[in-house]
Amino acid sequence: MKTIRLLIAYDGTTFHGWQIQPNTPTIQGEIEYCLSIIHNRHITLHGAGRTDAGVHANGMVAHFHSEKTMDPGAFKAGLNSMLPESIRILQASEESPSFHARFSVTSKTYVYSIYNGEILLPQKRLYTVHIRKQLDFDTMKQCLKELVGTHDFASFETAGSRDPLFPSRKGSTRTIHEAYICEIGGDFHSFTFTGDGFLRHMVRNIVGTVLEVGLGSRTVDDFKAALTARKRSAAGPTSPARGLTLERIVY
Amino acid sequence: MKTIRLLIAYDGTTFHGWQIQPNTPTIQGEIEYCLSIIHNRHITLHGAGRTDAGVHANGMVAHFHSEKTMDPGAFKAGLNSMLPESIRILQASEESPSFHARFSVTSKTYVYSIYNGEILLPQKRLYTVHIRKQLDFDTMKQCLKELVGTHDFASFETAGSRDPLFPSRKGSTRTIHEAYICEIGGDFHSFTFTGDGFLRHMVRNIVGTVLEVGLGSRTVDDFKAALTARKRSAAGPTSPARGLTLERIVY
Repeated sequence: MKTIRLLIAYDGTTFHGWQIQPNTPTIQGEIEYCLSIIHNRHITLHGAGRTDAGVHANGMVAHFHSEKTMDPGAFKAGLNSMLPESIRILQASEESPSFHARFSVTSKTYVYSIYNGEILLPQKRLYTVHIRKQLDFDTMKQCLKELVGTHDFASFETAGSRDPLFPSRKGSTRTIHEAYICEIGGDFHSFTFTGDGFLRHMVRNIVGTVLEVGLGSRTVDDFKAALTARKRSAAGPTSPARGLTLERIVY
Repeated sequence: MKTIRLLIAYDGTTFHGWQIQPNTPTIQGEIEYCLSIIHNRHITLHGAGRTDAGVHANGMVAHFHSEKTMDPGAFKAGLNSMLPESIRILQASEESPSFHARFSVTSKTYVYSIYNGEILLPQKRLYTVHIRKQLDFDTMKQCLKELVGTHDFASFETAGSRDPLFPSRKGSTRTIHEAYICEIGGDFHSFTFTGDGFLRHMVRNIVGTVLEVGLGSRTVDDFKAALTARKRSAAGPTSPARGLTLERIVY
């Protein structure tokens, strides 16, 4: 039995998230369906984590077990010929049997894209959140600095989010290695977060709160207080899914 | 009565083209609907031309007549608040009564986007055509040079395309001022065409034929022969709509 690792990109717009669900299009569901046809039996695909409905990926990782003797590149070609163009297999490679897409993760990087100009071009609207009012990027950058390090991120965790099948050993404590804002040009900006793991909606809840600071309805001190409060009600709203892309996973 | 000129961007993916049709979403239909609500009477929007189903625009121009005393900027803001995010009004300005979005055109620029790499990222798929086989860009560039100047482009005109309401004075003769290929990076390439006017499907029929040269199934001499043959059957297929964007119109 071989362990095959896939690097996957998808446009999350039309999917109800990564995780398979009955009677609704999901990324895991689409790929498992194609793998099961190839193997003529049910194949379970183990993802590095779940992404919510509408969230995109350029670097999701998943693995499955196969008795097939075919080259990993043949899985890539076969899957890409069967999958919708909104899901692409970027790489397929054989791993040692000890590899697990979820449990072997070292770090993940998410990028959140916003547009802070007057009119967002239609071709960008599915992948970018439009904030019309001028944002104060200096105060937002100060907020992101506060996040770096190991913290209890309970204030940024959406309730009811723990998976009973995978009780977390870490509670709501996570380590963020990097958090910064880049100006892409043309009024586009990206928020990049790299950490050892992220709670449910954590990036979107952080961005929603940081944007309140950028809009002046919350100060940097309010943001620090929200982080240390360790309760969801202390932080701001969940920003829209379409701005978020799972960019990279390191093992 | 004022003449108001609009500069319009749209994602053509979900529209059945520019021109209004009953019971189907079109760009003209969406904007006329909003203008008619604003004016409390039917408003006709005159476009610079029609784009086909699935074709995008960053620079469509249209005009309408209004008895409203409001500032043109208020039309822009009002329309953008009512229209779907797939259509954006980039500018609204008052013109002299002699301005006509269709008859006053000096030149139009279309851009056709292709990806010539292995895997097209999902977020680009709605705006780019994927050619997997390696293209010979040198021979394609030679073809584009042949197009510059005044020619009878009947070989690149889709049949049954003349509008009986607007019989053309020029037949199928048009002047192309510029035609070139740019490498955008990351295996993305764009074909840019500027001319005094374009026949129905003309850019897509040219690109479809040029791609046959790039793939080696037709020579540059074959391409020249197709241009001078003045019959549609001499040229290649119509390339997909999603690669095409109406980029700019000059008056």
